[in-house]
Amino acid sequence: MVERVAGGITVPEGFEAAGVACGIKKSGLDLALLVSTPPARAVAIFTTNLAVAAPLVVTRDHLRASHNTAAAVVVNSGCANACTGADGLAVSRAMAVDTAKALGCPVEQVLVSSTGVIGLLLDAEKVRHGVALAVGALSRDAHGAAAEAIMTTDPSPKETAVRVSTPGGVFHIGGMAKGSGMIEPNMATMLGFLTTDAAVEPALLQRAVTEACADTFNAITVDGETSTNDMVVLLAGGRSGVQIGEDAYPTFVEALRTVCLELALAIVRGGEGATKLIEITVTGARSLAEAKQAARAMANSPLVKTAVHGGDPNWGRLVAVAGRAGVGFDLAGARVQIGGVELFADETVFAEREPAAAEHLRGTDIEIAVDLGVGGSERATVWTCDFSAEYVHINADYRT
Amino acid sequence: MVERVAGGITVPEGFEAAGVACGIKKSGLDLALLVSTPPARAVAIFTTNLAVAAPLVVTRDHLRASHNTAAAVVVNSGCANACTGADGLAVSRAMAVDTAKALGCPVEQVLVSSTGVIGLLLDAEKVRHGVALAVGALSRDAHGAAAEAIMTTDPSPKETAVRVSTPGGVFHIGGMAKGSGMIEPNMATMLGFLTTDAAVEPALLQRAVTEACADTFNAITVDGETSTNDMVVLLAGGRSGVQIGEDAYPTFVEALRTVCLELALAIVRGGEGATKLIEITVTGARSLAEAKQAARAMANSPLVKTAVHGGDPNWGRLVAVAGRAGVGFDLAGARVQIGGVELFADETVFAEREPAAAEHLRGTDIEIAVDLGVGGSERATVWTCDFSAEYVHINADYRT
Repeated sequence: MVERVAGGITVPEGFEAAGVACGIKKSGLDLALLVSTPPARAVAIFTTNLAVAAPLVVTRDHLRASHNTAAAVVVNSGCANACTGADGLAVSRAMAVDTAKALGCPVEQVLVSSTGVIGLLLDAEKVRHGVALAVGALSRDAHGAAAEAIMTTDPSPKETAVRVSTPGGVFHIGGMAKGSGMIEPNMATMLGFLTTDAAVEPALLQRAVTEACADTFNAITVDGETSTNDMVVLLAGGRSGVQIGEDAYPTFVEALRTVCLELALAIVRGGEGATKLIEITVTGARSLAEAKQAARAMANSPLVKTAVHGGDPNWGRLVAVAGRAGVGFDLAGARVQIGGVELFADETVFAEREPAAAEHLRGTDIEIAVDLGVGGSERATVWTCDFSAEYVHINADYRT
Repeated sequence: MVERVAGGITVPEGFEAAGVACGIKKSGLDLALLVSTPPARAVAIFTTNLAVAAPLVVTRDHLRASHNTAAAVVVNSGCANACTGADGLAVSRAMAVDTAKALGCPVEQVLVSSTGVIGLLLDAEKVRHGVALAVGALSRDAHGAAAEAIMTTDPSPKETAVRVSTPGGVFHIGGMAKGSGMIEPNMATMLGFLTTDAAVEPALLQRAVTEACADTFNAITVDGETSTNDMVVLLAGGRSGVQIGEDAYPTFVEALRTVCLELALAIVRGGEGATKLIEITVTGARSLAEAKQAARAMANSPLVKTAVHGGDPNWGRLVAVAGRAGVGFDLAGARVQIGGVELFADETVFAEREPAAAEHLRGTDIEIAVDLGVGGSERATVWTCDFSAEYVHINADYRT
């Protein structure tokens, strides 16, 4: 049984966190620390972007050197430390060294992560100061401060946790995440940090995070962009005493998916300038890949996203995107529903139903369903947000 | 020698036009007619979108049945007559029949075109009335009215013409076009109508329009969308007496490209909400296809377009897009220039040069150059516009 509980990454036994301000951002918390006692089994998924930022290089190296063991994750916001060459790499390494010294753990057991402006060198002195502050502030209560410290343009912190009851005992999973621009499927979507007090071997843990992310973090998009810095990290500390083997694996993945979906949808809801969450389901596709491709094309279409923003049941734009999505599509068999109201089917327009669809669009949770009309049996769901003038304001003025 | 001359589609000998109001739009001109005497050789390029609108079906049929001969092109704005099934097809056919009757030409020598809202059935009575008005208004002076009558959200009409002096004599090419949303490479981009008084056989004419569009109409994007209705039509009437064979072909194509580029850039400048024209050149690519793919990815990136809108020389977003564009890319060799100012090269950030790049971004014609860093020799240029809050307002409220 999976139950939502209050809290975030420190709900599982054995984890402490901190969120502090060290001046990387103009104001507010900008450095988060997550510590596992004892060191946890650790796996990660990284951005698919070829312009990989320095912290990802360091974290990847450390996971390899430590054989997937992590005592701590240290994250800063306000500076991505991406495209910063050898100097940037040195700062990301120093960030891990400082943290390892302060905690008394091997450097390869520290994972590092950064988010913020690209092309700006991270200030090593500020990080050193922040790490010292954070180590002093570690507690089980500071999960909220940690979730706040990883935010950039996010309107609010994102965290959640679940309690999972199994025949083998009770364990927990917690998580926090940040959006909210450069969000697009294909991993690479954002930062996500997940903890559990279940005991899981690295190979199974990697399989679980990959599987749970596929239709959660990897099925959301805000603007079609993937970033240079994004990663999801999952730490399994084992303090619950519950060992996850093949038998308990389905339960574990399902609970992990619950946590990931909640965080993923929170990212979309908090998308830059977003006022609505849009769930787009494509059916009748020839393959799962084509279903996903069509759903993503619609979810990233500026014309679809602005129509939803304006409350306009403009199903014609959905058809136009389906037609250009590079997938099997037949206008004669295509169907479009908005909020369960069928507006187009059998090449017939049901204009009289548009007011009902428009009523649905006045809400904040929008459901769109498009059948590609080629008689396939595959389907996929992608979540996105609407596109507002506020998105433009945020991104035109981001660095000023 | 190619010289710009005043006017548009009626500059070439043998063409008359009209632009009239028949109530398809709430107000303003909404039906254009172009007539060639004698009937011209005619070729067209159509949308790549699989959701093909009724007028395209009719025009394609007529070009086949007439063996590429056209006496007239009739175009309405305000209603795309797309996704309108058998009823829509009947109206598009009736539009051609009405025009043929009024002009006394075979129906298959009439090409039809529509632009506007998708999913709305075109009103056959209004079209009939408009055709009657237009036939009565035909003149060589009405090119501007025709260019105005094909507009939807375009801020201004787009037309141009050239006079071409060759050893074989003088001929002319004229053109008009409309944007300004759903603009994206891969043909399908918009409506373009081109005329010439040179004599060109259909096979060579088709080759010429395809070649001239490849790096003009097919190298622009406003929002990454392709429409259900878009087409470029080229009519060659022959009245100049200049015959274009293989010898004169390069001159003809070059002149045609001049006309197409001017119209294409006018579409981008008039893009929905646009305040700046952005020229993005990608160099160092492994193949032409990859160069185009990377340039298009940048040209459609909301983060790049909003940064330019805000005057922010945020080269990091260009690198991030290059890294996710699905092409060969190496951060270590990548270079980014904005307005000729190199901001990133050899993994080094030249932050001190950003004010110079920011100064360039205050202008209206923006130049961006990105080298992919993999040592290839291919390059491509794509034109786009910036992304403003006005784009959102236009598209959120389009039908209301």
